[in-house]
Amino acid sequence: MKTDIKALLEAVHSGSLSVEEALLRLKTAPYEDIDYAKVDLHRGVRQGVPEVIYGAGKTVDQIAGIIKVMKEHGQNRILITRLCEENAKKLSYNCSITYHPEARLATLGDLPHANGIGDIVVATGGTSDIPVAEEAALTAEFLGNRVVRLYDVGVAGLHRLLDHADEIMNASVIIAIAGMEGALASVVGGLADCPVIAVPTSVGYGASFGGLSALLSMLNSCASGVSVVNIDNGFGAGYLASMINHMEAKS
Amino acid sequence: MKTDIKALLEAVHSGSLSVEEALLRLKTAPYEDIDYAKVDLHRGVRQGVPEVIYGAGKTVDQIAGIIKVMKEHGQNRILITRLCEENAKKLSYNCSITYHPEARLATLGDLPHANGIGDIVVATGGTSDIPVAEEAALTAEFLGNRVVRLYDVGVAGLHRLLDHADEIMNASVIIAIAGMEGALASVVGGLADCPVIAVPTSVGYGASFGGLSALLSMLNSCASGVSVVNIDNGFGAGYLASMINHMEAKS
Amino acid sequence: MKTDIKALLEAVHSGSLSVEEALLRLKTAPYEDIDYAKVDLHRGVRQGVPEVIYGAGKTVDQIAGIIKVMKEHGQNRILITRLCEENAKKLSYNCSITYHPEARLATLGDLPHANGIGDIVVATGGTSDIPVAEEAALTAEFLGNRVVRLYDVGVAGLHRLLDHADEIMNASVIIAIAGMEGALASVVGGLADCPVIAVPTSVGYGASFGGLSALLSMLNSCASGVSVVNIDNGFGAGYLASMINHMEAKS
Amino acid sequence: MKTDIKALLEAVHSGSLSVEEALLRLKTAPYEDIDYAKVDLHRGVRQGVPEVIYGAGKTVDQIAGIIKVMKEHGQNRILITRLCEENAKKLSYNCSITYHPEARLATLGDLPHANGIGDIVVATGGTSDIPVAEEAALTAEFLGNRVVRLYDVGVAGLHRLLDHADEIMNASVIIAIAGMEGALASVVGGLADCPVIAVPTSVGYGASFGGLSALLSMLNSCASGVSVVNIDNGFGAGYLASMINHMEAKS
Amino acid sequence: MKTDIKALLEAVHSGSLSVEEALLRLKTAPYEDIDYAKVDLHRGVRQGVPEVIYGAGKTVDQIAGIIKVMKEHGQNRILITRLCEENAKKLSYNCSITYHPEARLATLGDLPHANGIGDIVVATGGTSDIPVAEEAALTAEFLGNRVVRLYDVGVAGLHRLLDHADEIMNASVIIAIAGMEGALASVVGGLADCPVIAVPTSVGYGASFGGLSALLSMLNSCASGVSVVNIDNGFGAGYLASMINHMEAKS
Amino acid sequence: MKTDIKALLEAVHSGSLSVEEALLRLKTAPYEDIDYAKVDLHRGVRQGVPEVIYGAGKTVDQIAGIIKVMKEHGQNRILITRLCEENAKKLSYNCSITYHPEARLATLGDLPHANGIGDIVVATGGTSDIPVAEEAALTAEFLGNRVVRLYDVGVAGLHRLLDHADEIMNASVIIAIAGMEGALASVVGGLADCPVIAVPTSVGYGASFGGLSALLSMLNSCASGVSVVNIDNGFGAGYLASMINHMEAKS
Amino acid sequence: MKTDIKALLEAVHSGSLSVEEALLRLKTAPYEDIDYAKVDLHRGVRQGVPEVIYGAGKTVDQIAGIIKVMKEHGQNRILITRLCEENAKKLSYNCSITYHPEARLATLGDLPHANGIGDIVVATGGTSDIPVAEEAALTAEFLGNRVVRLYDVGVAGLHRLLDHADEIMNASVIIAIAGMEGALASVVGGLADCPVIAVPTSVGYGASFGGLSALLSMLNSCASGVSVVNIDNGFGAGYLASMINHMEAKS
Amino acid sequence: MKTDIKALLEAVHSGSLSVEEALLRLKTAPYEDIDYAKVDLHRGVRQGVPEVIYGAGKTVDQIAGIIKVMKEHGQNRILITRLCEENAKKLSYNCSITYHPEARLATLGDLPHANGIGDIVVATGGTSDIPVAEEAALTAEFLGNRVVRLYDVGVAGLHRLLDHADEIMNASVIIAIAGMEGALASVVGGLADCPVIAVPTSVGYGASFGGLSALLSMLNSCASGVSVVNIDNGFGAGYLASMINHMEAKS
Repeated sequence: MKTDIKALLEAVHSGSLSVEEALLRLKTAPYEDIDYAKVDLHRGVRQGVPEVIYGAGKTVDQIAGIIKVMKEHGQNRILITRLCEENAKKLSYNCSITYHPEARLATLGDLPHANGIGDIVVATGGTSDIPVAEEAALTAEFLGNRVVRLYDVGVAGLHRLLDHADEIMNASVIIAIAGMEGALASVVGGLADCPVIAVPTSVGYGASFGGLSALLSMLNSCASGVSVVNIDNGFGAGYLASMINHMEAKS
Repeated sequence: MKTDIKALLEAVHSGSLSVEEALLRLKTAPYEDIDYAKVDLHRGVRQGVPEVIYGAGKTVDQIAGIIKVMKEHGQNRILITRLCEENAKKLSYNCSITYHPEARLATLGDLPHANGIGDIVVATGGTSDIPVAEEAALTAEFLGNRVVRLYDVGVAGLHRLLDHADEIMNASVIIAIAGMEGALASVVGGLADCPVIAVPTSVGYGASFGGLSALLSMLNSCASGVSVVNIDNGFGAGYLASMINHMEAKS
Repeated sequence: MKTDIKALLEAVHSGSLSVEEALLRLKTAPYEDIDYAKVDLHRGVRQGVPEVIYGAGKTVDQIAGIIKVMKEHGQNRILITRLCEENAKKLSYNCSITYHPEARLATLGDLPHANGIGDIVVATGGTSDIPVAEEAALTAEFLGNRVVRLYDVGVAGLHRLLDHADEIMNASVIIAIAGMEGALASVVGGLADCPVIAVPTSVGYGASFGGLSALLSMLNSCASGVSVVNIDNGFGAGYLASMINHMEAKS
Repeated sequence: MKTDIKALLEAVHSGSLSVEEALLRLKTAPYEDIDYAKVDLHRGVRQGVPEVIYGAGKTVDQIAGIIKVMKEHGQNRILITRLCEENAKKLSYNCSITYHPEARLATLGDLPHANGIGDIVVATGGTSDIPVAEEAALTAEFLGNRVVRLYDVGVAGLHRLLDHADEIMNASVIIAIAGMEGALASVVGGLADCPVIAVPTSVGYGASFGGLSALLSMLNSCASGVSVVNIDNGFGAGYLASMINHMEAKS
Repeated sequence: MKTDIKALLEAVHSGSLSVEEALLRLKTAPYEDIDYAKVDLHRGVRQGVPEVIYGAGKTVDQIAGIIKVMKEHGQNRILITRLCEENAKKLSYNCSITYHPEARLATLGDLPHANGIGDIVVATGGTSDIPVAEEAALTAEFLGNRVVRLYDVGVAGLHRLLDHADEIMNASVIIAIAGMEGALASVVGGLADCPVIAVPTSVGYGASFGGLSALLSMLNSCASGVSVVNIDNGFGAGYLASMINHMEAKS
Repeated sequence: MKTDIKALLEAVHSGSLSVEEALLRLKTAPYEDIDYAKVDLHRGVRQGVPEVIYGAGKTVDQIAGIIKVMKEHGQNRILITRLCEENAKKLSYNCSITYHPEARLATLGDLPHANGIGDIVVATGGTSDIPVAEEAALTAEFLGNRVVRLYDVGVAGLHRLLDHADEIMNASVIIAIAGMEGALASVVGGLADCPVIAVPTSVGYGASFGGLSALLSMLNSCASGVSVVNIDNGFGAGYLASMINHMEAKS
Repeated sequence: MKTDIKALLEAVHSGSLSVEEALLRLKTAPYEDIDYAKVDLHRGVRQGVPEVIYGAGKTVDQIAGIIKVMKEHGQNRILITRLCEENAKKLSYNCSITYHPEARLATLGDLPHANGIGDIVVATGGTSDIPVAEEAALTAEFLGNRVVRLYDVGVAGLHRLLDHADEIMNASVIIAIAGMEGALASVVGGLADCPVIAVPTSVGYGASFGGLSALLSMLNSCASGVSVVNIDNGFGAGYLASMINHMEAKS
Repeated sequence: MKTDIKALLEAVHSGSLSVEEALLRLKTAPYEDIDYAKVDLHRGVRQGVPEVIYGAGKTVDQIAGIIKVMKEHGQNRILITRLCEENAKKLSYNCSITYHPEARLATLGDLPHANGIGDIVVATGGTSDIPVAEEAALTAEFLGNRVVRLYDVGVAGLHRLLDHADEIMNASVIIAIAGMEGALASVVGGLADCPVIAVPTSVGYGASFGGLSALLSMLNSCASGVSVVNIDNGFGAGYLASMINHMEAKS
């Protein structure tokens, strides 16, 4: 941002930019204000990566409006998360989205080629964690990663997990998703020597307290290299995993 | 208790017991009232098993008083838990106790021969859990069990645990002790097919919240056959493990 | 597991097993991978005990698929827990299940003969705790135990409980189920000298906080021999009780 | 208060009281303002009952100052609660107090004759609850009640409690004091048909969470006639019990 | 209970009662076991006071069954709490109940004459607390008390409360019901010198956390003579208030 | 209030007011008692400001009744908060209200002219916080303030916020509304040097725990001049902001 | 800030400022970087108001270093909060501070003349809340406000509070400070029609949970115009009160 | 691990390894069992990276013993975390450690050359967070990373943070450390497009609840690419940051 200001100052100084225009540019460039939302166009336009709309708490009209602005700015690859089936249906009358009901996630545009450092492993403790896992996996795929899915490999049946030691030890990043006692993150973290992103889920009952049990368990993991995102936050895990898996491309 | 009442009624009916005496017996038999405590003599006298004094929140004089009453009733094998080093020292002037500083536990009388069904395995996630583990192990030994100690076998280094698969799979009962994320109980519960008693410990910092994290984790264990006792309750786990390990002797 | 590895190594060494086959066996033996679930066939096949499917968070198709795999591997006695009435109905079109609506539990195959050490007592504090109690009782019966039901014997009317002192004192294992203040576990634990498995329930309102009150109360029980499972976890209690009640058969 | 206003208005109307004086009286009558405290003299002066000073968080000088003001207004029977041993010692240089170290409570003036409806029973679950119990008992005695102490009658040894069924069933009010699982209140509440005031204590460890477990348990008591005061609030229980025990004297 | 045992023993001794019969009487007298419930007939039969059925978590059939047993034992005055409108309607086909929809409470039999020491004041902080207040007030009336209702007198408009200082200062017992910040109990407790029973309600939003805020506030009340019952527990407050208001009748 | 009493006393003394009338006036003046509510007419009548009805937990009849009383006392500008769409519809048959569905708020009477010190800025972190923001904004406008709305300016896209530095630095009072991590209040508080009223919202999922996360975050704000109201309490923030924005008019 | 940028841009454009210098100015102006702290000099230098150092968690050397930098920039009026007695003593060797031990607060420089709109009332529920109150009061005085102290006017003795109705109704801003049940804020908020800043304190025991009870109570206040700051945050309340009390001077 | 098994199987098959030896190797290779600890030698020996000892809850003798075993296995670069000053002193008599008192961390062996992808930025909200920051920074440096320290750049003074936009936007990984409201993580996460590891600290008071406030705030961060580790877990953040910063070296 500071470099931008410097460039701007120099342009003003050299006369190639008027003061008013400079001020205007600072104001209007990075996003479009459509009253109920400030649509961030910064990253998308600059880097060509897909843009994300958090669908929860937004009306179909609001989502459609945001998509429209994005498209007008040349953004054709869009990810919409937390989109319920009913809203997805309504939205599909306006835009040609691909909807993934289990992950409650819609996409616009084609999947990119996978160009990360390696594979992202998405592992779940049980069958009920799959919706969160699919949110993570589809997000990662949409951001250009190859994903290996290991579902229902919870620690209470350790051989199911150990049987996939190959995938775990060869992963570039691992997303460990579990509700209940959340022990998967620690066990995976102990086996792997790559970053492990732990996602607690709200799956469970009683003393799982809506995911609190898994969350605390994962935060207290004794294994090194484990960090945690919000309960049920599959998108956040997929996004961060992709970021890490594209590290070498950066510098 | 009802059988006692019936026996009493019959004795009264047959004239071998007066009404007053019957009432008195109901009142005085099972314990001695020494003002600040009602010393339970029931189980000890009847079954010959050791009697237990919970030392926390009691003065040395109170503890000594309780021991005195127990001895007068023929109870020579006594276990005192939660006894701090300072009080143990003071108490040793009165009674010939054996003190285990790490477990903060004192014993009177000899260790019995181990006569349980099998071995009790006491496993800990880390080195810092050892005090709780020793409380559990010594309690179990004092109640007539052979104990196998597996310390520092936390799930973040799975091979350390798997290396003891023999002991785990041959155990009669397992006590799984862990702080932090408490995942040990689930992993052990998945490997073993005997009852697993999980003991959360207050070891940890930050989001371990004094053992809450491990407690919730263990309560949510997906492995079957796992139950939980209070945070740091090594004694309770050792006592219950012994009870289970002596099941066949009962009927 | 280590014995298995040793046997495998020896078979490889003796030439009776090729390296590839050995590796394959390690991989495929203990469970069947049907994409959304890794069906554990280990214990069932080896020991003839019933297998359990946790129904919550699984679709009817997924449950039917798991049953199919189990049956193909010769497992004819199956327990399905947390199955809502609607799904039970749908499932009954595929498989001949017996459904217990109060306990939200279905079974396939015949009940085994009871062959435990003694009786399992299932006691509840109130009428509203009965669904959890039935889950526990039916699980125990399905695993080969004789069950004595003592319902609505909460501590606020102590005579209702004391009247069943016979059953309590003769039990092999007791499952004490209560919501609200959860005091039943402590009182029963003080009367009995067998293991007591406490099940807090979410029955109650206000400061019961979804079972938290009963949970904490039971974890703090002063009675020895009491351990706790998750809120409303009737199945877990029934399973563990059966395990303890079959201790003598093990060694 | 409204009657006071009416009386005042009439006095002003009749000319027996000037407007200024009336206003002054409203302002100065009920308490004395000594800068750091507004000493309430209302109840004491009017009714002759003892006045109470909450000692925690007050300096010895502040306490001595409040006592001085009370005495100047003819209040000679004073109760000081939550007074640590060190401050009690310092205070004794100024005033002739009687100090009860276990209850951390000091009194000035003589004990009144007991003139309540009946006896107040103070019962505790364990030996460690005695300090809170003594605070309750001494408060009740200081307010003119006969107190029966039943200590260490926790529900894990039910016979110890049932043995005192006489006292419990004859009580006018019962104060049930317990830490850990706090089940005493429910059991006592089920046996008695008088008001039961439950006092949770911070005695315990682990999942007792500083008295939270006992507090929740007592709030959820299924027994009718039970109400709860703050954790460790022996004074509040003793005060309320006395109030109830003097009901008949009121109308 | 002990007196009963003594009487029984003497009857057995004198030959007027056989041993078998004595045992039987102990067992069958105080309640009727109807499988899903142990109907307590003790207090009702002995004292003529109404009996109470807690309706939540019971089916209409179960409630009707319990009423039937009660009536067979001569109990004609029955109170049913926590009865939803739908179940009340169904129940009215079986029994002639009077239903109070706001309080979700039904009664059988006539209201008794009020015969307490004085009046019970039921005060609420707001309009939304009225359902809980009506549960308390109707319970108290059903148990023979005259009730004064002061609704919507919350402390944010102090003059509304002070205007009723007469009723508050003349009350025998006060039930203070409030959600949100729950300050009503403290203010009322400071004005009155009779027992105050505080009922936190789940009325509110956000940081009221389902009544937790009001509950904690009331437990911490600085006013003497205040005790607390469970959140929304109007019945418990009404029952206890009646017990206190009938103190003089007891001894 | 004391001045009122003095005036009253003087009127009584001078004979211009009888004692009975004086007492009556104290009682009846400030509100009207309509059984289920004590309608406060004090502030409205005296100051001409609008009166507020909290709609949640009140029936349409109760609300209509309160409006009727207010109008009879000359109060024509009324604000009704927390009014659901269904009740608004019903209410509109009785009174000519203007309903704002997003803010769940209805008004009677005209908007006053804005006469505050300056502008009130209402800023939200996201689109989903808009309903709470509209409640705040409309309340402030209804109380005579000019409002600047800055929606969706959360800190994760700092340029969206900084772009409105002008409005923020020129504001008289700022209402910062955010769910999730609630960081908006701190950042705004650091930029502005006017009072900032922080409103946590229940927007979010998982570890937002119904607004607890934003609430704690805002309470811990390091920026000076920030205070907090209840979760989702848009009305309270708007009311307080208006109060502050009218400070100069007061003295 | 944007105005600054515009000014800068114009200066660059007109040639009166070089690009390098402009960039430098943006970077260095507002604070001094002394390695362990970035000393904010912005507000102080521009507005002449005192600067504040939060003393907790800083060494004496760090505090002295920050003071030195401030003085070098012409800031002679400095407030240091949360300064323990020991550190205050050490600091007094370096700088001539005035230390207020009860409020744990030190000042440098003279008190300004009070120039606010009106008086700030600081009220406490009890004597133990005085340290927090003094922090608030001294902060407000140091920022140029006249402060009226009303200590120990808790709601359990309402007449103590009502007696000061004059001060409360004439206040410009009120700071209501209370621990335990925190009801003071609601009652004061109902009496006054100026902004009320509520400060929960950690005074109390048991279910006050370190101030949580008072915090929740205050957040749920039904009185309009009440907002809340962090537990024990006397400084924050004093600072905000001063800001509000200087509103008219602003525009 | 499976590759190891395969290699082993082939060695056995080819006769180059006996069955007994194979079994032994599986057992003894990866760690040394020194009774109170299972020293993990796996990663260190294989990869040459430093080994870590968690010092909390271990005696000096235990730490010295673990170091001795590590050295015997050729591990000369060792990191000891959570080592208090007193234990560090004692340990220095045995081993030549370098101790960093602020970070409570000791090292053995030389610092490696920095060989990561880029720089790791360690930023703190305040001065009091520096100890946790130093733990993170030193850990990262010890694992071969260049670290940029940005201390006291909390969001309440945004210009302090924005002034370092260069470092933030050029970072490879950012560790954002903050107590109180924890907003730093969100703001940094919004500015940067690299992974951000958030570390909540226990710095604060009142409603920070020992770091809970910052923890929840960070988990709810709206910025993408943010994940969280345990409260005060500087080591975990430094370790994970290093892992991510060495991604390119991996594949």
